[in-house]
Order: sequence, then structure tokens, then C-alpha cells
Amino acid sequence: MKFIDLRSDTVTMPTEKMRKAMAQAPVGDSSLRDDPTVNKLEELAAKKVGKEAATFIPSGTFGNQLSLFTHTRRGHEVIIGKDYHIVVHEVGASSVIAGVQLRTLETDNGTMDPYLVEKAIRRDDIHEPETGLICVENANLEGAVVKLENLQEIKKIAEKHSIPVHLDGARIFNAALALNVDASEIAACADSVMFCLSKGLAAPMGSILAGSKEFIQRARKNQKLMGGGMRQVGIVAAAGIIALEEMTLRLPEDHKNAKYLASELSKIKNIEVNPKTNDINMVFFKLDDNIIHEDILVKKFYDKNIKINKKENGEYRFVTHIDVTREDIDYVIKTIKEIIE
Amino acid sequence: MKFIDLRSDTVTMPTEKMRKAMAQAPVGDSSLRDDPTVNKLEELAAKKVGKEAATFIPSGTFGNQLSLFTHTRRGHEVIIGKDYHIVVHEVGASSVIAGVQLRTLETDNGTMDPYLVEKAIRRDDIHEPETGLICVENANLEGAVVKLENLQEIKKIAEKHSIPVHLDGARIFNAALALNVDASEIAACADSVMFCLSKGLAAPMGSILAGSKEFIQRARKNQKLMGGGMRQVGIVAAAGIIALEEMTLRLPEDHKNAKYLASELSKIKNIEVNPKTNDINMVFFKLDDNIIHEDILVKKFYDKNIKINKKENGEYRFVTHIDVTREDIDYVIKTIKEIIE
Amino acid sequence: MKFIDLRSDTVTMPTEKMRKAMAQAPVGDSSLRDDPTVNKLEELAAKKVGKEAATFIPSGTFGNQLSLFTHTRRGHEVIIGKDYHIVVHEVGASSVIAGVQLRTLETDNGTMDPYLVEKAIRRDDIHEPETGLICVENANLEGAVVKLENLQEIKKIAEKHSIPVHLDGARIFNAALALNVDASEIAACADSVMFCLSKGLAAPMGSILAGSKEFIQRARKNQKLMGGGMRQVGIVAAAGIIALEEMTLRLPEDHKNAKYLASELSKIKNIEVNPKTNDINMVFFKLDDNIIHEDILVKKFYDKNIKINKKENGEYRFVTHIDVTREDIDYVIKTIKEIIE
Amino acid sequence: MKFIDLRSDTVTMPTEKMRKAMAQAPVGDSSLRDDPTVNKLEELAAKKVGKEAATFIPSGTFGNQLSLFTHTRRGHEVIIGKDYHIVVHEVGASSVIAGVQLRTLETDNGTMDPYLVEKAIRRDDIHEPETGLICVENANLEGAVVKLENLQEIKKIAEKHSIPVHLDGARIFNAALALNVDASEIAACADSVMFCLSKGLAAPMGSILAGSKEFIQRARKNQKLMGGGMRQVGIVAAAGIIALEEMTLRLPEDHKNAKYLASELSKIKNIEVNPKTNDINMVFFKLDDNIIHEDILVKKFYDKNIKINKKENGEYRFVTHIDVTREDIDYVIKTIKEIIE
Repeated sequence: MKFIDLRSDTVTMPTEKMRKAMAQAPVGDSSLRDDPTVNKLEELAAKKVGKEAATFIPSGTFGNQLSLFTHTRRGHEVIIGKDYHIVVHEVGASSVIAGVQLRTLETDNGTMDPYLVEKAIRRDDIHEPETGLICVENANLEGAVVKLENLQEIKKIAEKHSIPVHLDGARIFNAALALNVDASEIAACADSVMFCLSKGLAAPMGSILAGSKEFIQRARKNQKLMGGGMRQVGIVAAAGIIALEEMTLRLPEDHKNAKYLASELSKIKNIEVNPKTNDINMVFFKLDDNIIHEDILVKKFYDKNIKINKKENGEYRFVTHIDVTREDIDYVIKTIKEIIE
Repeated sequence: MKFIDLRSDTVTMPTEKMRKAMAQAPVGDSSLRDDPTVNKLEELAAKKVGKEAATFIPSGTFGNQLSLFTHTRRGHEVIIGKDYHIVVHEVGASSVIAGVQLRTLETDNGTMDPYLVEKAIRRDDIHEPETGLICVENANLEGAVVKLENLQEIKKIAEKHSIPVHLDGARIFNAALALNVDASEIAACADSVMFCLSKGLAAPMGSILAGSKEFIQRARKNQKLMGGGMRQVGIVAAAGIIALEEMTLRLPEDHKNAKYLASELSKIKNIEVNPKTNDINMVFFKLDDNIIHEDILVKKFYDKNIKINKKENGEYRFVTHIDVTREDIDYVIKTIKEIIE
Repeated sequence: MKFIDLRSDTVTMPTEKMRKAMAQAPVGDSSLRDDPTVNKLEELAAKKVGKEAATFIPSGTFGNQLSLFTHTRRGHEVIIGKDYHIVVHEVGASSVIAGVQLRTLETDNGTMDPYLVEKAIRRDDIHEPETGLICVENANLEGAVVKLENLQEIKKIAEKHSIPVHLDGARIFNAALALNVDASEIAACADSVMFCLSKGLAAPMGSILAGSKEFIQRARKNQKLMGGGMRQVGIVAAAGIIALEEMTLRLPEDHKNAKYLASELSKIKNIEVNPKTNDINMVFFKLDDNIIHEDILVKKFYDKNIKINKKENGEYRFVTHIDVTREDIDYVIKTIKEIIE
Repeated sequence: MKFIDLRSDTVTMPTEKMRKAMAQAPVGDSSLRDDPTVNKLEELAAKKVGKEAATFIPSGTFGNQLSLFTHTRRGHEVIIGKDYHIVVHEVGASSVIAGVQLRTLETDNGTMDPYLVEKAIRRDDIHEPETGLICVENANLEGAVVKLENLQEIKKIAEKHSIPVHLDGARIFNAALALNVDASEIAACADSVMFCLSKGLAAPMGSILAGSKEFIQRARKNQKLMGGGMRQVGIVAAAGIIALEEMTLRLPEDHKNAKYLASELSKIKNIEVNPKTNDINMVFFKLDDNIIHEDILVKKFYDKNIKINKKENGEYRFVTHIDVTREDIDYVIKTIKEIIE
């Protein structure tokens, strides 16, 4: 019995082609740099975002925290948007592994104001921590993209103050598509970039941290420290290569489906779609608990073979991806109408 | 040559009576709990804020960080006002010693909105850190006091969620005076409270961390770990006793002087006194650099035997204390008029 | 061109059966506990070592550090053998992630003296850290196994002092084979156990941390914090299931091969085999650089399609595993004779 | 009622001269570098140990941990004697504040073997932490001094590997006296040195961390972070100046008294004085619990106005200092004879 799973694009299944590639991938001990498939993936990944080097890591959280740990010294302060993944969804890891203080800024739909970024950089004062890093995020966790000009402006400020920039680009290819630029143009606004091979790109696991050769060399040792040294992991890297080479090309379909889903939802009485968060493969909308309680909606959808999450911050989030077709969306729309009307 | 020092009340000199008491204080090895003067101070201090126990510590920063370290587990999140001392003036220590993530809230002149505090408490979710502590501050670093009702409401929320509350009460006696309540009423809104014996109370050094017996017992071991175990420190504790018994009684003078200073400054053209930050012994005001550049103002004042700091966040801060008399203030007013008019 | 790789059993390749299983494994979002293959592996793994629950993790280092982090509070002291993997091969991670102090004991060939373990437990003293954990290791990193009685004695001491025990059982099935007991009997001497599915068991990646339900529940959140939350990782878990069900049964072959290799090597002039470190699938031996320099030996072997490491602590280590046959060993012996005689 | 206190030299009382100096000391806000007495002490202290700069800190533990924190990066490994104060008496602080791993070496009565120190330095290997610091201690916590040649040899090794050396010189002036060299000659074997003004030098509190200008500048900011920024602390610094200028001159008396005490104790049946630990102002000896249980000995001494500690590691430790006269020692000897004979 097939489910339509709208909870996240993290639920995407590896494709048949990926499974075949995994079954046949030549592998080796990746910790000894002996895995040809991992090596190939890392080279390809670096190139895709225009960086010198890259390392394959178990997850997006791992990559963000590895980057913080490698860029900063303990006690440093990191300037970051208050609604970014590193702040809200990584279990407070930055205070444990990197040991840094987060200076969180308000964002306008995921976009930080460069003026406020510069103002948040610490003076040379014995009472104040040193600003060690600026973190940007694109696409934003909440479905919006940040304009290239904004990132460029922040990068310029960072350079002026000799502070590195890390980009949480978990969905960088979605952002690039929405901005109609190459992913490397976004990555050029940062010294390091993390992006995921799972999520919309459908690889079963794994992410990439990319940056300068010197940075990645230091990161590899920290990766080992954090327990991210894996062995014949070319098995999954094989899927990562397909993710980068082929799956990036089909993202427009997810975006179109999300736009279509948003448009159809907005026609339904009592549903209020958030137009600001429909840049990529996500639709956020409000539906009052007085109309239908979220627990009931989740349950009724489940009974109709549709998985959704409960509301977060007062909004439902539906995510489109490779395993959600246009027909699936029509079925979702039909179902929600039946439930609430 | 005497200077009038308006930079902070941290510059207060010990009184003659304090010096005499220090010279004669019976002492012992405080780390072995053998110092009678320290023991007396700790007992008195606990009583002053209505707590079971207290420990004498080298500084306010030490006490705040000791409290965070003792209340929380590493990786916990701490809810706190974004302009509080722990966030802006303790060199990022909370990410180093306690190893916690700060969830900073906007404040209205130092006051956190209880609704936002409750909303900031984390759900039980595998992606999110656990909320381990709520930090309040009174009087606020920036010269304002927080209403008792506000603290009581936050305490009630904290209790509902079984989360402890720490009060940075560096200037708790100033706050109590401004609110016309006993310091213990403010402290009752928190599980632990730190307050300073130096600053307005004029002891040469030292602060107090107070709380339950069980909390202070654990804090004593952490104090040792943090290098705060001192020896015959009854010498300075002797001054602390006078600070608590006598100097608290003369704080009204500093508050009156600050009000007077504010009132006189506001009569001067181009000076814009901030009325919201005049609750205790501080005056904040704006004076445009086009009228007189801050570097020049600092220098000209210095030439007239007055020490002031440069602006912070666009405002000058003048602080009154035991070593600033009404006559000194008249002299300051006269001098600033001469300089800028 | 096939190489005989004696550097470590971490180089083992996944078998054809594993590759097939991986290609067909049903998967889901493991972070949401939706991956049936991961769930199956975790259940099987827990059972294999007689624990209530288990979690699938990216590496052995990850599992050891996750265990330290979950068992202890920061600043705790951990009693451990000075030559254990956690001390010498995990990049100092325990001071970063768990934030604990290691109290390292001398070992007799990997075995700690229970008397010294008990003596190393800290008193309740304000100057001393609290002992938060005892770590044992079996089989030892250096090829020896620890007797069951020794582990049982240490466990008894730990229980007497209410201190948990963690077992680094990276090669627990090798240890169980050498001791002729079930792996669960070894694991019964500890509250938590980590073991690897790669290494001798030939899965491409991944390890297991097992313990009580309550412990594993807390560990899962810390795993997320450490960046070990993976997605459709049932792909590799499928190989882990075969590793546990089938590959454990073929370890006797590796042990026999190691014994045979040791025996043949010891017949060669100038080679001095260490008899104490031949309990499992490893052979350690001395060969003086005056006879042949290690760099040259490594090179000459390589030219003959044999990979070995340079000496560590003055000894060569040759490791047998699934990809090293009896014929391979004969070839290695023949080759080394040609080289040094 | 006067007690003879043999528990430690940490119990020494400030002298009358110190009390007078403290009563009259000119002071200022030390955190703003405005305290003339602190500034004078820091200058004098740096000179005494031949370093460029020094900072006044609350305790010896504070100074050692501040030094570790300032020299190293998190995750570094520190080579240190396993019986040194930093390892056994600082509550595990190095894993909390600096976040480093201790690589502890056996010592011969406090002296590390330079060969083992060099062997303990880590290779450049992805599995291993980086060696960030070597810690020496002189005089040793347990009453022995380390020869200058030994320290010089270790310093040479450290320089060869570009690793800094920190000296825990809590009792450096006792060590200098025993070695008949200037304290600066011992300090020359290290990049940074911590020494105490309390203990044998009788100041009521405070220690010094000295090193290069650049090192102390960074240490000052870390000192602030750790809560060691104090205010009008010239009060106690005044006693520190006397400690350095005058009290260092009277240490020979304590050493002679300790030798005398050892000699008299060794004449008593059943008492076995440890001759290796009598280099400075300490006497260590064995006295079997079968002769008299330690609890009873402590109690009986106390009833005779003598304070001693219970045994540590099987030995009693008696410490001589300014408040223990030759007559006191005779009284102690007479008393112990009465008790055990």
C-alpha cells in the first residue's frame, strides 16, 4: 500500500538506477582515502559548487557542525538568522561541539539585513567574544530563497572584517533553480558550503561539506573526531553521484508541483496559503483548529494514505519531491476538500 | 589630583571603614570553610536575599557563569534577554564553561515578555535542545528595572515547565530601591541569584551566588573547578559585610543624584536624555558627533578631571556612585556646558 | 589487479550477497524511525548482545563517543586502559564532545587490573572530579582478548560504586570466538556496548550502540546532535543484517589464518612474533630496520601486490579477514622470505 | 586558642605588615587596568620569574586552567605527569574549560622522563589528537623538586617540536630554594608559569600567571571570560607585593623546620618517613592504621590543638610554614610520641 508522504523531502526513496549503481560500485576504505567512488563523488561535488575540495559526511547536521567546529575557536560568536536550521533543528549542537555562542538576528523570511549583520560584528573589547563566523542559509528552512545580491553584500562585509562565511545550503540546488543561477554562484558567497544528497536529490543518505583545500583538510581530521569516518561508503556515494548528475535536473518538477499545490489549496475556503514561502518545493498554509483540529487532520489524511506533519509555528508544511506526482497532488487536494468541506 | 569617574560604579573605592575592617578581619582557609569572616558574609548575604545558602565568589561574571554551569547540562538551551550582561559582556563564556545555547529574546527596555518566554520553551522533540534555564536580570544592565509582577509571572511559567530561573542581580539593591521592595522579594522570583558587593556597594571585589543549600553545595565544587577557590579571603569579605549592612542604605543618594544629573542634562541643548533608563544610578543620553565627536568629548572631560566612556549603542552612559557628590555633578554639568555650548 | 590487504580488517569489501541485499532493501526515513531495515537491524543487534535496545550509527568512534556523551556529565572522569582505542585513536574526541577527563590505567596486554580500577575511583572530595564511567575494551585494539572473569570483576566493582561500564566491543565477535563464549556474555559485563558491522564482518559501514531502552532513547537524541541522524540508511543496514547473521559464523577462518600466519612467520629468521597478541585475527611481530627498513618493506610488498602498514610502537601488524585466503597467506610468507632472506 | 595547623601552607595567615599595607593600598578598577597596586604587583611578579608580563588571578587552579585555555585549542592533548595538581586536584577542569585531553605519564617522584615525554608527542596522524602543550610542575605537589637539567631537557624537546611548556610553579620559590637557583632559572624552562602568593608566601589570596606580552594579553581576555576580572583588588595585591619582596626570604626557615620534623619523626618507632619527599616544606610518612587509626590520630591531635589531614595515598603529610615555629614542631613531636607510644 503506497503512501503519499508530504512530511518532508527527507523521505525520498533511492531510485532504481541508484540501487543498481550502489550494487555495483567499486569501493575501498574511505577513511584511508581508498574508496574510488567516494573520491569521485567528492571531486564532482566540489566542482558543482565551485570549491577546491569536498568531503562526504553522514548528514546535513554533521556538515554544519563540522564547519562551525573547523572555522571557529571555542568561545567565538557566530552571527546567524534566528530561524535557521543550525539554531532550531540541530539540538543545540553548536554549544557542544564547536562550543560557540550564537548571535541570532531577526530575518525577513529567511533573509538577514546586511546592515544588522555588520552591526552585530563585535568590537575588539575585553568584555566581548570574538565574532568568528557568519552563517547564511539558502534555501531557507522555511521554503524561501535569499537573493544573490543579499548574500554578496554579506560576503563583502565579512571580507572587510576578515570573518569567514558558512552557507547551509542543504537545498542549494532548489535555491539555485528558484534564483535561476548556478549553485556555484550562491556558493561563491561563502567560504564553505554544506549541501545534502538526500532530501530532494533522493540519495539514501549523506551530505557534502565543500571549501578550500586547506579547510577541507582540517575538516577531515575533525570529521574523524566527530565519528564521521566511514569505510566502504562508496556504496552510498554511488547514489550521491547520480543525485548530483541527474536528480538536480528534475527539481523543476517539484517546484512546479509545489506552485500548483499552493494554487489549488488557496482556492479552498478557510485555507490561507503563505505566499512568501513557496519559492521552492514547499507549501506553508494556515488552517484553523476550529475548522479541523490538527490531530484529526493528520489522522484523516493517514487513513487516506497521505502522511503529513502537525503544524509548526501555526502552519502546516507540505513538501513535494520525486515520490509525489501531479496525480498525487490532485488526490491530496480532493482529499482535503472532502475532509474539511 | 582627584578625578570624578562617571564610567561605571565598578570604580568605587573602598571606604575608610572598610579598610579598617579588612585590616582587622579574622581569617582562615576559605577553601576549607575555615574563614570566619567569609562564613559570616555568606550567611548574611543569603539572608539578605532570602535564600538558604550563599557562596562568595571573585566577580559577577564568575557568579553568573557558575550558576549556568550548576543549573544546566551541556547542550541545554537558556532563555535570556538579548541585551543582558551574560549575553553581551561575558566574552561568550556560556558557550565555553556551561556549554549551553542561548535563546535570546527581544526585551522592552530590559523586560522580557512572559508570553514570549513561554513560547521559547522547547517541545520534547528529537531535533531540539532541552530548555534548561531561564535567566532574568534586574536591574538591567542599561539602567532600567523590571517590575516585580513581570518576574513573578516568568517564575510561574518556569515552575509550570519545571525549569529553574537564575537572576542576574548584580545591582539587585538598586532595583529593590527603585521598586520600593525588599531585595528578597525580587530574589524570590528566582532559584538562584547573583549580586555584586563591589559596584554601588563599594566593596573592593567580590560577588555572591545564593540559592538552595543543595544548589550551593554543588556550586561550591564547580567554583573550585572554575578556579574560584580562594584562601584567607575574609580580608575582602570584611568589606563585603559592610557593603551589605551599610552601603545598601546610602543607595538612595546615588539614585537622587542620577535623577538630578538627568534633569540638568536634559536642559542642555542638543542633549537628549533617555528617560527609560534612569531608574537607578545611571543616565543615558544622546549627543550627536556633529556637535562634538565622542573622542573629543572624552578628552576634554579628562582634561577637566572627569572620566567618561565613549558611547555604546549610540548613547553616553554616566553612572553615579559613592565617589560622586552633588557638587561633582554640578561641576560635570558646568563643564559639559562649557564644552559644547 | 588484486591486492592482498593486510593493513586492517577495515578494508573488507561487502560480499555479493550484501550488495544484492542492499539493492533490494526496503527503506524509509530512519530519523523518523520509518526505515524497516534499520529497525530490523537494531532489533537483531540488540538481541545478539543481550541488550534491550540498539541504535545504528555511522562508525565505531561515533558509537564510543556517543556512549561517553550519554553516560557522563561534563567534567566527569572516565577510567580506561591507556592503550584503548578511545584514548589513542579517536583524535581526543572525549575532551570535545563528552567533555570528560580520562584517567588512564596501565594494562597487561589490554587487561586492566580490577584492584587498580577500584583504586582509581575518586573519593567524594571537593578537589576531585567525579568518576562517571569505566571503559573496557574487548577484543583489545592490539589483538589480545580480555578474560570474562576480569570483566565480571570490574563490573562488580562498578556496581558497588554505582558507576556505569561501557564496552568498546568493536571486535566483540572475535573476542567471543577466542573466549568461546557468546557475545552476550561479554556484553553482560557492561551497561552499554559498541560493536562494528564493518571490520571483520565485512559490512561496508556502520556500527551499533546497544544498552537499556532508557539509555538508547537518550542516545538517539545525542546521536542527532552529533550529526548521526541518517535517512534511507536501510540500504547499508541490509548489509549489517547479513554481517550479524552470517559473517559472524566465518570468523573462525580468520583466526585460524592468523594463527597459521603467526606460526609461519615465526619460522623465519629475524622475525620475532609477539605471542600475546595473536588471540584474534591479528599478528604482531618485530623485524629490525637493520635487516630491512620499514619503508622498503612496505614498498617491496606493494610491488608484489601486498598492502601493509608501517610499524606502530615498533611492531608490524598483519590482519586477516574475509578477503585474505589461506593461499594468500602462503603467498605473503613466500614473498617476505624472498624479500628478507 | 591557637592551633598548630600542619594540613597545608594554604592556611598561612597574612602578617601584620601585610594587613597594614592592605589597609593603605592605593587602588582602582583593575579590570580597567586602573589599579596601581595590581599593576605594581604584576610588574614585580613578571620580573621575579624573568617573564615579560604577568596577570594577577584569584587562585592557582585558576592560573593553571587559564594557561591551558590560552595555550591550546580544544581537542588538543597535553602531556603531563599523572600525579600533578592539574590532574588530581583541579576537579577535572581541563576537560571543561580548555577542553583538552590529558596524556598522563608516570613520574619518578614528580620528575618526568624526557625520553617518555618525547615519545608521547603525537605524530601527524588523522586518528590522533595534536599535542598542544607540555606541563611540568616544580616543586611537585608531593614535596619533591625537579632538577633544572630535567626541565631544560624537556624544554629543548618541546622547542624541537614547537610545543609550548607551562610550569605549575605554585611553590616555585620553595623549589628555587631547594635547588639553590633563582626562580627565573626554573621559569626559563617554560613559556608560561603560574605561582602562588598565598601558600608559603602568606598572602591572603591570589596567584600570578606570567609569560610573554602576547600570551598575557590573550590570557587577560580569557581571564575575563572565566570570571577572574576583579575590581579594587589592589587591596590584596598589596599583600602579594610583600609576599614576593619579603616572604620569599624567610622560606629557608620552613625548609629547615621540615627537615628537623622529618628527622625527629624518623626516630619514632612505627613511623616511616619518606625521604624522597622532603625537599621543601613538607614531610610525608607512613604510620600503620593498626598502630593507630587515622581517624583517631586526627582527633587526638585536634584535642591537643594540632590540625592534620587524614592520609592520602597511604601517607600522612605535615606541612611547615610561617605559622609553625620550631617550638611548635617540638610540641608536635612530643604529642605524637604521647599518642602512639
